[in-house]
Amino acid sequence: MRVAVLTGGGDCPGLNAVIRAAVRKGVQEYGYDFTGFRDGWRGPLEGVTVPLDIPAVRGILPRGGTILGSSRTNPFSAENGVRRIRENLDKYEVDALIAIGGEDTLGVAARLGDEYGIRCVGVPKTIDNDLSATDYTFGFDTAVNIATEAIDRLHTTAESHMRVLVVEVMGRHAGWIALHAGLAGGANAILIPEQRFDIDQICGWVESRFKIRYAPIVVVAEGAMPKDGDAVLKDSSLDSFGHVRLSGVGEWLAKEIERRTGKEARTTVLGHVQRGGTPSAFDRWLATRFGLHAIDAVRDGDFGTMVALRGTQVVRVPLAAATAKLKTVDPGLYAEAGVFFG
Amino acid sequence: MRVAVLTGGGDCPGLNAVIRAAVRKGVQEYGYDFTGFRDGWRGPLEGVTVPLDIPAVRGILPRGGTILGSSRTNPFSAENGVRRIRENLDKYEVDALIAIGGEDTLGVAARLGDEYGIRCVGVPKTIDNDLSATDYTFGFDTAVNIATEAIDRLHTTAESHMRVLVVEVMGRHAGWIALHAGLAGGANAILIPEQRFDIDQICGWVESRFKIRYAPIVVVAEGAMPKDGDAVLKDSSLDSFGHVRLSGVGEWLAKEIERRTGKEARTTVLGHVQRGGTPSAFDRWLATRFGLHAIDAVRDGDFGTMVALRGTQVVRVPLAAATAKLKTVDPGLYAEAGVFFG
Amino acid sequence: MRVAVLTGGGDCPGLNAVIRAAVRKGVQEYGYDFTGFRDGWRGPLEGVTVPLDIPAVRGILPRGGTILGSSRTNPFSAENGVRRIRENLDKYEVDALIAIGGEDTLGVAARLGDEYGIRCVGVPKTIDNDLSATDYTFGFDTAVNIATEAIDRLHTTAESHMRVLVVEVMGRHAGWIALHAGLAGGANAILIPEQRFDIDQICGWVESRFKIRYAPIVVVAEGAMPKDGDAVLKDSSLDSFGHVRLSGVGEWLAKEIERRTGKEARTTVLGHVQRGGTPSAFDRWLATRFGLHAIDAVRDGDFGTMVALRGTQVVRVPLAAATAKLKTVDPGLYAEAGVFFG
Amino acid sequence: MRVAVLTGGGDCPGLNAVIRAAVRKGVQEYGYDFTGFRDGWRGPLEGVTVPLDIPAVRGILPRGGTILGSSRTNPFSAENGVRRIRENLDKYEVDALIAIGGEDTLGVAARLGDEYGIRCVGVPKTIDNDLSATDYTFGFDTAVNIATEAIDRLHTTAESHMRVLVVEVMGRHAGWIALHAGLAGGANAILIPEQRFDIDQICGWVESRFKIRYAPIVVVAEGAMPKDGDAVLKDSSLDSFGHVRLSGVGEWLAKEIERRTGKEARTTVLGHVQRGGTPSAFDRWLATRFGLHAIDAVRDGDFGTMVALRGTQVVRVPLAAATAKLKTVDPGLYAEAGVFFG
Repeated sequence: MRVAVLTGGGDCPGLNAVIRAAVRKGVQEYGYDFTGFRDGWRGPLEGVTVPLDIPAVRGILPRGGTILGSSRTNPFSAENGVRRIRENLDKYEVDALIAIGGEDTLGVAARLGDEYGIRCVGVPKTIDNDLSATDYTFGFDTAVNIATEAIDRLHTTAESHMRVLVVEVMGRHAGWIALHAGLAGGANAILIPEQRFDIDQICGWVESRFKIRYAPIVVVAEGAMPKDGDAVLKDSSLDSFGHVRLSGVGEWLAKEIERRTGKEARTTVLGHVQRGGTPSAFDRWLATRFGLHAIDAVRDGDFGTMVALRGTQVVRVPLAAATAKLKTVDPGLYAEAGVFFG
Repeated sequence: MRVAVLTGGGDCPGLNAVIRAAVRKGVQEYGYDFTGFRDGWRGPLEGVTVPLDIPAVRGILPRGGTILGSSRTNPFSAENGVRRIRENLDKYEVDALIAIGGEDTLGVAARLGDEYGIRCVGVPKTIDNDLSATDYTFGFDTAVNIATEAIDRLHTTAESHMRVLVVEVMGRHAGWIALHAGLAGGANAILIPEQRFDIDQICGWVESRFKIRYAPIVVVAEGAMPKDGDAVLKDSSLDSFGHVRLSGVGEWLAKEIERRTGKEARTTVLGHVQRGGTPSAFDRWLATRFGLHAIDAVRDGDFGTMVALRGTQVVRVPLAAATAKLKTVDPGLYAEAGVFFG
Repeated sequence: MRVAVLTGGGDCPGLNAVIRAAVRKGVQEYGYDFTGFRDGWRGPLEGVTVPLDIPAVRGILPRGGTILGSSRTNPFSAENGVRRIRENLDKYEVDALIAIGGEDTLGVAARLGDEYGIRCVGVPKTIDNDLSATDYTFGFDTAVNIATEAIDRLHTTAESHMRVLVVEVMGRHAGWIALHAGLAGGANAILIPEQRFDIDQICGWVESRFKIRYAPIVVVAEGAMPKDGDAVLKDSSLDSFGHVRLSGVGEWLAKEIERRTGKEARTTVLGHVQRGGTPSAFDRWLATRFGLHAIDAVRDGDFGTMVALRGTQVVRVPLAAATAKLKTVDPGLYAEAGVFFG
Repeated sequence: MRVAVLTGGGDCPGLNAVIRAAVRKGVQEYGYDFTGFRDGWRGPLEGVTVPLDIPAVRGILPRGGTILGSSRTNPFSAENGVRRIRENLDKYEVDALIAIGGEDTLGVAARLGDEYGIRCVGVPKTIDNDLSATDYTFGFDTAVNIATEAIDRLHTTAESHMRVLVVEVMGRHAGWIALHAGLAGGANAILIPEQRFDIDQICGWVESRFKIRYAPIVVVAEGAMPKDGDAVLKDSSLDSFGHVRLSGVGEWLAKEIERRTGKEARTTVLGHVQRGGTPSAFDRWLATRFGLHAIDAVRDGDFGTMVALRGTQVVRVPLAAATAKLKTVDPGLYAEAGVFFG
């Protein structure tokens, strides 16, 4: 049995932990061989591989990124994409494929399985934690920890100068990172894409905070938008992973708050720091368990499935579930956080 | 409505976050007054209080420990304990009490409610994560992160000198910290109280690790014991929170491994560092949600209950559930980790 | 004897440690009283004070920012500034003043001493480490650690996607943070204000780095400029502390690199995160020693001086030395780093 | 020109940074070849080498430990030691040798140079910072940061339970780590090997601390001893690097304090965690500069010298200076810290 592994989409702390766990268990317990495909679906499409065995996965558990590289290549957009993938799977004698990725990567895996009978098992990955099929995805906890630490640091500088600090975090369609890091960091306002914000209300919070001689921290997801129109984002370009570039909503907010309240305001855009570096303990544990369960699904011949976390259990769900529905922040949960605003 | 809050048992990162969230919501949304009882059940027993209002909880979210102090006082062991508690609740005009603590503290709350009609809501706290009624307790994630970071550091020094490093972590009856930190840190052996260990097998792992020119890290819970008798612990005193003191199993293991394999072995006992300091983002988020839901239980008059995490939801369960059953590591879960041993 | 303390200019991790050390030693060993002036020179100018005694400085050692607040108020620009300061020093019975700040704050202290006989001792503070009178200033080591940790994180995400990552760090006139963090983080190019950079050379480094399948990290000080003109900064506004705002040189660089090499490039602007939060151990030690030595200078009646670090010794130098000469990166030192570029 | 490199003695964060810098500059700027000798002087003694070139040093900058391995082998204690070293230097065509190590390792290098004409350049390494020839050695700052972070964590748990926490840190003959981490962590007592401590005085400090409702932290260097006799250490074994093992002075202190004051006391022995893991930014910078300057000394033919830090400059001093005199804590400096005790 030869199993191929690939990682697609934006990188997440924990990818290497998944790869390592699958290879360790596959080789040691089931006697499988492994092949790494490079750069997501580009690997099987163009036949680019990397050796994948026990020595190759040694020492990678605490390392961020992915030893396999990543890309957003979609074989269905490539000429003869599926045929070329088939040929390469044959050429490298691949019996099963573990695809680690988000909505797009797993969507391809689902379709390759359903329509072409290619034997795939999926491992969900999204730093934004916006897949409804799983309680958490790895990388999210690391990002939240990094953002929280940054907010901790900004409190003292904000208070020394009595200025507003706006922290822009990842989250184009879902505000999970903003919500968790904002709550954990003691933010005075949390703005998420799920609910348009009212700039007047925010300025009210800012002013009430200053009245008690504390300085406000506003945490804003990159995809958050004001109530009146989407003027904020009109000059923002999107990067190739769909994330809003600098001079987005954070910068706009700081300028508006300054203009309306007369208080100095500054923006910090955390950017790629949130998705790099060593994974948190939780993410290493979750990614490791995902890797172990993915190789078990391969052994069971349970293709077309994806591993997922439910409570403290790792379960299998249909691959289609990965793309079924974006998990956005529940309004009730967001309202719960409101007690800390202002 | 006046609500009293107390924290009992060993301290955990996140206690202050619970207190802050309950007070913020209680005051701002429900118009409650608060009283802090000092040092767990000693507070209501001896009538020792601390002021608890919005200014008192400002800035405490990122701080470890508890602003209320803690103790292991059990009012049922004190003369006229219950009567004195009643008198003090009357004296301070307390209508409801939020008790934050582990098995012992919550057991007292349950009994005070059941037998004496005292209106209590519980918040579970155990750094060992060994309460079966909740998926996780706050403080655990912080402890696991600290232990994992220590293991990361020990890898390089172990390898430079080709010696064995034994890391003793908390966990007297349950091996959760050892299991999670050991998996996250890439340990070569994880020893937990739930399953007696075989020193010969461990020495085998140690030797096989050296054969590939890597140095082994052994993570051991303080309550782990060898197969043949409990000789290890016979000289160990227990501290007042029931934790094994230095020169416990870690030290014993290093000596045995050295004696049997001829390889140098060293022990690091992480000790109290694991339970101190600023909580991780996850623990701040969990503790904050526990605090918000505890005050909601008070408002609903839902006494005799305790908040608990199930998946991503905070629910209420009977207080009795807190003490019902120790949540130990499942043998299947432990076996799953075995692929990384040796 | 009553000693007043003030902190001026941009905040730095370590300010509170200076204040605490001066107060602890002044009260305990010399029996002095203390008065805190709020918000730099605004405090003595407008007569705004904060109580400053042993309880006030308890627990502030690990806290970033300054409990006294800060501002950039210059009494020489205010009407009757010096007279008002004199009156307030008399009113609050201040015998000596410890001024903690950078070039501007200490320049005022020097002039108040020289021209008006006001008894001042200075403590140098600049996160950029650009004062020539002292080997290091506190806050710098913390900023370098934060920037280095960010660079560590960016390496893995850069490599997973084979893209260029540009990290913009503080340093408007001096490139010390960029140089130290760039060296410590293993950057492939470090750009500093002291030497105009050649965009063609940088693109050459970028391309040679990709050739060996590694992704380049470019660390750039906010004040760095390209060889041909200062077009980069023409749209950038400066904040009130003279730091370049977002969409500065980092963003410009990423776009130019992308345009010229065809490789994806991203920017991370670390911003205020660098100057906030808990100080590193080195900065706490240095700030504490500065505070102890400043109060000793007061006791010795050694006014018009400033404390400074020379090797491992804290010495006193004339206050004028603080403003004498900007300490920029020595060309030889910068050239030394060049071996790691490309 | 072929240059050999070896690392001897206990490992320190920063060793890999020295190796990398020397190899990068040696290969790129001077066109040298390199050979790594494994495990300190065992390498040239037994002829055990590792390949050392640009690919071998890639990515090692942030990694603790040493890729060359280490040992305490002393060729002068080995039969025909010097002759065998000579033969292996000839066999591997080594023209010059960079020895990175402490007193012992560099003492061998000095003697090999003086007595046998072997061309050596030294790089000082001691985590205890006790070499008088250099202001700082790399590894020390990392150790101090780790110990300070641990002390930060212990404050909150100490205060929640109103107990004494004793933290035992490295430092057998010199108390630098204890002094710096104790000052940075806000310890209430710092005990160093240079000055015998008075247990009655410590108990006095402990009691005065509790009177103001704070809990004391006592930082003790492993080599500290009480005034009356050295009874403390009589049962302690030393490990092969001369460090006191567990159940040393820290444990003794906690028991004595408990016995004399009646207050609960606990010990944390930081142990090997202090010397492992990724170096701080300062240590990476210092180690990198040491590596660059060591290879320059080789190029200049300046053998029998060692690099050293003086202020912000790296200079060369005779190798003999490395072993001339232990740099212990100056009594004046220690007295300065006394203002924070109690």
